[in-house]
Amino acid sequence: MAGIWLIGAYGAVSTTTMTGIAAIKTGAAPRVQVGMVTEAPECDPIRSKFPLEEIAVGGHEVRFLDRNAYQASEKIWEENVHFQRSYLDKGKNELSKIKAKKGTAINCGPGVDALGELDTLEGEGLTLSEIISRIMKDYESFKNKNGEVCVINAASTEPHIPLTEAHQSLDTFEGLIDENQTEMVTASMLYAYAAFKQKIPYGNFTPSHGATVPAIRELAVKQKMPYMGDDGKTGETLMKTTLAPMFKMRNLKILGWAGFNILGDDDGVTLSKDANKASKIESKDKAISSSIGYSPFSITEIKYFPPLVDHKVAWDYISYRGFLGTKMALQFTWHGIDSILAAPIAIDIARSLMFAKSRGEFGAIHELAFFFKHPIDDIIGNTFIQYELYNNWINEGRTVELKKMQAKIVK
Amino acid sequence: MAGIWLIGAYGAVSTTTMTGIAAIKTGAAPRVQVGMVTEAPECDPIRSKFPLEEIAVGGHEVRFLDRNAYQASEKIWEENVHFQRSYLDKGKNELSKIKAKKGTAINCGPGVDALGELDTLEGEGLTLSEIISRIMKDYESFKNKNGEVCVINAASTEPHIPLTEAHQSLDTFEGLIDENQTEMVTASMLYAYAAFKQKIPYGNFTPSHGATVPAIRELAVKQKMPYMGDDGKTGETLMKTTLAPMFKMRNLKILGWAGFNILGDDDGVTLSKDANKASKIESKDKAISSSIGYSPFSITEIKYFPPLVDHKVAWDYISYRGFLGTKMALQFTWHGIDSILAAPIAIDIARSLMFAKSRGEFGAIHELAFFFKHPIDDIIGNTFIQYELYNNWINEGRTVELKKMQAKIVK
Amino acid sequence: MAGIWLIGAYGAVSTTTMTGIAAIKTGAAPRVQVGMVTEAPECDPIRSKFPLEEIAVGGHEVRFLDRNAYQASEKIWEENVHFQRSYLDKGKNELSKIKAKKGTAINCGPGVDALGELDTLEGEGLTLSEIISRIMKDYESFKNKNGEVCVINAASTEPHIPLTEAHQSLDTFEGLIDENQTEMVTASMLYAYAAFKQKIPYGNFTPSHGATVPAIRELAVKQKMPYMGDDGKTGETLMKTTLAPMFKMRNLKILGWAGFNILGDDDGVTLSKDANKASKIESKDKAISSSIGYSPFSITEIKYFPPLVDHKVAWDYISYRGFLGTKMALQFTWHGIDSILAAPIAIDIARSLMFAKSRGEFGAIHELAFFFKHPIDDIIGNTFIQYELYNNWINEGRTVELKKMQAKIVK
Amino acid sequence: MAGIWLIGAYGAVSTTTMTGIAAIKTGAAPRVQVGMVTEAPECDPIRSKFPLEEIAVGGHEVRFLDRNAYQASEKIWEENVHFQRSYLDKGKNELSKIKAKKGTAINCGPGVDALGELDTLEGEGLTLSEIISRIMKDYESFKNKNGEVCVINAASTEPHIPLTEAHQSLDTFEGLIDENQTEMVTASMLYAYAAFKQKIPYGNFTPSHGATVPAIRELAVKQKMPYMGDDGKTGETLMKTTLAPMFKMRNLKILGWAGFNILGDDDGVTLSKDANKASKIESKDKAISSSIGYSPFSITEIKYFPPLVDHKVAWDYISYRGFLGTKMALQFTWHGIDSILAAPIAIDIARSLMFAKSRGEFGAIHELAFFFKHPIDDIIGNTFIQYELYNNWINEGRTVELKKMQAKIVK
Repeated sequence: MAGIWLIGAYGAVSTTTMTGIAAIKTGAAPRVQVGMVTEAPECDPIRSKFPLEEIAVGGHEVRFLDRNAYQASEKIWEENVHFQRSYLDKGKNELSKIKAKKGTAINCGPGVDALGELDTLEGEGLTLSEIISRIMKDYESFKNKNGEVCVINAASTEPHIPLTEAHQSLDTFEGLIDENQTEMVTASMLYAYAAFKQKIPYGNFTPSHGATVPAIRELAVKQKMPYMGDDGKTGETLMKTTLAPMFKMRNLKILGWAGFNILGDDDGVTLSKDANKASKIESKDKAISSSIGYSPFSITEIKYFPPLVDHKVAWDYISYRGFLGTKMALQFTWHGIDSILAAPIAIDIARSLMFAKSRGEFGAIHELAFFFKHPIDDIIGNTFIQYELYNNWINEGRTVELKKMQAKIVK
Repeated sequence: MAGIWLIGAYGAVSTTTMTGIAAIKTGAAPRVQVGMVTEAPECDPIRSKFPLEEIAVGGHEVRFLDRNAYQASEKIWEENVHFQRSYLDKGKNELSKIKAKKGTAINCGPGVDALGELDTLEGEGLTLSEIISRIMKDYESFKNKNGEVCVINAASTEPHIPLTEAHQSLDTFEGLIDENQTEMVTASMLYAYAAFKQKIPYGNFTPSHGATVPAIRELAVKQKMPYMGDDGKTGETLMKTTLAPMFKMRNLKILGWAGFNILGDDDGVTLSKDANKASKIESKDKAISSSIGYSPFSITEIKYFPPLVDHKVAWDYISYRGFLGTKMALQFTWHGIDSILAAPIAIDIARSLMFAKSRGEFGAIHELAFFFKHPIDDIIGNTFIQYELYNNWINEGRTVELKKMQAKIVK
Repeated sequence: MAGIWLIGAYGAVSTTTMTGIAAIKTGAAPRVQVGMVTEAPECDPIRSKFPLEEIAVGGHEVRFLDRNAYQASEKIWEENVHFQRSYLDKGKNELSKIKAKKGTAINCGPGVDALGELDTLEGEGLTLSEIISRIMKDYESFKNKNGEVCVINAASTEPHIPLTEAHQSLDTFEGLIDENQTEMVTASMLYAYAAFKQKIPYGNFTPSHGATVPAIRELAVKQKMPYMGDDGKTGETLMKTTLAPMFKMRNLKILGWAGFNILGDDDGVTLSKDANKASKIESKDKAISSSIGYSPFSITEIKYFPPLVDHKVAWDYISYRGFLGTKMALQFTWHGIDSILAAPIAIDIARSLMFAKSRGEFGAIHELAFFFKHPIDDIIGNTFIQYELYNNWINEGRTVELKKMQAKIVK
Repeated sequence: MAGIWLIGAYGAVSTTTMTGIAAIKTGAAPRVQVGMVTEAPECDPIRSKFPLEEIAVGGHEVRFLDRNAYQASEKIWEENVHFQRSYLDKGKNELSKIKAKKGTAINCGPGVDALGELDTLEGEGLTLSEIISRIMKDYESFKNKNGEVCVINAASTEPHIPLTEAHQSLDTFEGLIDENQTEMVTASMLYAYAAFKQKIPYGNFTPSHGATVPAIRELAVKQKMPYMGDDGKTGETLMKTTLAPMFKMRNLKILGWAGFNILGDDDGVTLSKDANKASKIESKDKAISSSIGYSPFSITEIKYFPPLVDHKVAWDYISYRGFLGTKMALQFTWHGIDSILAAPIAIDIARSLMFAKSRGEFGAIHELAFFFKHPIDDIIGNTFIQYELYNNWINEGRTVELKKMQAKIVK
């Protein structure tokens, strides 16, 4: 038995994750070559240890708390029609039994506020300590029922608040919490902190701070918990970190890379706010330089475009220099459905972190860089090297030093 | 001292190669990050052994034999304006001294005939044996002057003639030549045969038969000569063998891949003839399956489109299946200038083959798969694995068995 | 009361037409700005004379004759999911009552044969005369029930058989029929002939011969019946005939136009056969020259690509010359759903032809050129001039002479 | 004899205009179908009255005043290589004799300041009145030499300063000038004011205020001078106002239109400043609504992308709704060279305004809407209706009332 606890449980990524697992369990939905890496034969050690059949789901939400997971999933489906209706019907029985717990949206910024009225723990007047206690209790009860579990943060992108001296050590950070300094933390920090306290691994599917705050990283090590992030690499960035190395290998100079993203769901609403968008763009921008070792002139733009709903269209224009200095160009249009691409990766990350824990590994599991737009500690962005790293890790464990992984950037 | 002998010496690829080397030698043209792999630091053993400064060029042609290389290059440039005019001016002195030798176009098909009046050795009434002798003599004199040399076939694509029992062994093949069975050989076979007889490595930049005929491969081994092919991987296929592995790594199923190519130069004229085009499409089609281990529904179309001249535009549409079976799509438009992409690779192949010879390696150098659309013996198509293979080979020589290289296809 | 009789009744275009009318009648589906021109305010005279509420549908088929229209529509829907499932449910009552009559597929070519086993009138051993009688009887019974009706040929594209002397006059054509010269006619000719005999207008939504045979045009005039064709202008050609005039107005020279179409439904299967495709490409190719008065270098390619099902993706690359002779380029990717684009136009054509009949107009109604890829008699292709022509015709009737319409081509 | 006076004389548009006229005069450059509308047969009355052979050029600049027009053109050419070098050589004689006069850049915003050090009349310490006098004197001397002339503002886009009560009447506006209220005017206003004072027509090729200030419009009427603007319609907006009507005619609903522009020359530098960009985006945004009568969700983004230099790439993604409410999409990539598209249109506008003046027409010549992104007084945006309006005007003069032209928007 195992479980995945989703922050942002009723969003598009999470409901697709929940419906998908339910539909695959019934045998209705296909499980082969559908974007879940851990179902590929290469990942058999992980797959066989945490079979989909034995994975339960739950999560925190700050909206629609009167709904159960079936109702939440149905609402998202009606807007997106992103898979066959019958999968929802087949999963109804299981999904109806799941209800999200009330969470926190502290300092989630104007983008999250724009989603409508929120129903949060801080809204009940709880202090930071009390919020953490409630979250830990929810985690605990999920863990008690399902054995090994992992928290995946799939909530909307938060603005980055400035990290102060107090964020640098666990001691001072816990001071902030004790003093209820609400402006000094964000929701993702609380979720990560609570997870490690509860001895649960944490995967950061968003570019929000989460586990990356030094104080919280310290806690993870102390508790011997694995974690990784940031920001699931699902679409345009996957393309960037695949194509940029192609130019590098061929010794072609990338002169400029312009990327425009349009998307129309809640994520789009959130990212239409500059504060929230900044975290995202930062995460996307480093992708190229960490793949090829230099930074070409770069444009990364994200815009809310309602007609697309959950579809995401990215147009990228790459100008490069060839023999004798002659300029040429490549352009691509990526048309993906965000939740369809993200859901299986969220499962991959959860399974991989539980696998890491089962082998006694802890701290940032850099070998999972393959799944992230902006791997913690600026590990190599090149998708192919990441893939090798991941596969070797599955079979041989942690053999490569951090320094060497980082060095691969300039290789 | 070293040299590159170009079949199709006055075509776009060859004249760009010649002008490029000349312009780089004078210091006028940039040499860093311009698409030449062997100029990257990783390839230092090759670069330092065969510095561009010491590479001479020459070649065979079947048209415009009254021109020198400067005049031929200028003509191509006027149609394409594919680099700064000044490079031509700077290289004039060196280029004017080079004059192509008369070659053969035997069984080069309707596509080559469509290029206009040809001036060939067979046009002089020579037999196959006599043609081979003449070619060998040209090679010899070039070799005598320049030391280590390599033949690169950059001529237009020939139709594939059916290979018979007689093509299977050197003995019977030489029988065909002795009996002057002109319908049984093509120009590329004669060029490759003559190269090996003359103890010169041979790189097949086209999908024409060239060195891949079993009888000629036998000769290469007998003479201890290295060779590799087929068909320089410069544009759309480079993209295919980079992107298809991305889907594979992410365990996403490619449902179909439609690729349309338009180009407007002599190569386009040649490929507008079905017989010549067939060889090319065959070469491009295997790229995906050799990268991912299965064959999605595939369309590969090449059309002549005169307004583009030497520019090449490829539009590819890829339909793939994600989580829960949902279909999504990626499309790209590759806009490259064929000769600009091909010329540095032609130099890379020549340098690499001379390097192989210098280490005593012979037969098909599968480790050069990185440079070819359709690597001989169906070696792995995945660009990234090819790149690793190539880099390891530079530093460690031939350590991987053919079987294992082929097996990587299904990895 | 009025009615539309669809040839190819269980194909994607026809079933979408039938379901659409049914769903709009119930008020479930939107009717405003959904691609039906005759629902726009400008077309009020037509709309008010033939309101959707009073339009019945029926048709001929050569496959799946055991199904009713609901079952046939459901099958198409399951493959395409091209509209909300609920529309089908809402229309079920009406659709279940409709059953296609057995039709003919005489000389419809290898493309139609490839669709699977056919169930045709000629399969019963009927002669041409008998086939025509049966078709006429089906028409008659539909007309008796529904008052004014129109036949729309929405069947798969036929190969063009050569038209002989005997096709030039009604007299000799009827001789062919009497003598049962089955190789001299195609299904579309029989449908059109029978329509005019039965005093029913005929719209040719395909590039098949249909009413365009001189003998059959003679019959239309004799019977005072209106007709128009060929080939519904729904996607790429609509773009061509809109954009080509833009270049013309700006006095920019189009140097070349390359268009690649991929599609995945039965239509794609049919068009993957060269004989059937030839008719289609001919129809598409004239679009540009009839819009701008000259013929740029042109490529038109259509390929079967199963992953798309009924979706149709066209990529067009246009090379044009600007000031000082400098070349520039435009490219577009049109992503449409064939039946969704075609169905409302099929209704527009039917309504317009019934409207023409109601005003006593007969012969080719050139003013409907707006709806066709290849308007009969090579009327102007420019979409904007066509639109003006159509609007003027609605309000003022036939005031422009054929000659003057054609002259607009070179305007 | 006639003349075109270019504001921004050494920019890309102006130097291309000057070189183009010179090269065409010599017969070196082609003049047929190169994007100049007034050279088409339909415009013969204009062409024959102001033949290119008799058109002189001059202009104002604020940079590089030590250069002559040949030197300025050569500099632009070296960065862009946007036409054959030989045209510059052929025009050298004529171009070398042209030298720009020192102009004003008053309130041209941070974008213009970013171009580098400026050399302006205000820099000499002149008052507004004195600046106007100097400009008028330059105009006068050009007019004395060349007869009928026209001022075309092809300078960089200015930020829009707020128009006050004082800008509403000529009287109060002249008060601002007398009082030297420098913060209340922009350079384009001064150029337009001076032109009308000097009885010269004025065409506003930029979205800057120029002649559109009510006070200056009053002056134009008083002086009986024609003018028109704003912002030459050369690329993406030409596409928008051509394609949006296509959807409208077919009664298809445009749900959203996302347009991303990248460009790399001085214009890009200027537009990378938000204040300057705002004027531009406002001008582009109205294009769709003025073409179809409603405003779909719209994104218009312009970004500086240096690798493109003067090339301009626009990617537009259009989401539209078809039958049964089904969504479909069109996307295009426009790849144009800004100056190549703009230069001939600048000449068209100048010729057309001189033609208007020769017929005694004055005020805003709305019939020239065809040439502008944002026609003054919100005249119809639909390119085709604009074209008809323009052609009728050439032959029949001003016959359509303003109200009726505006009404055409909703047609």
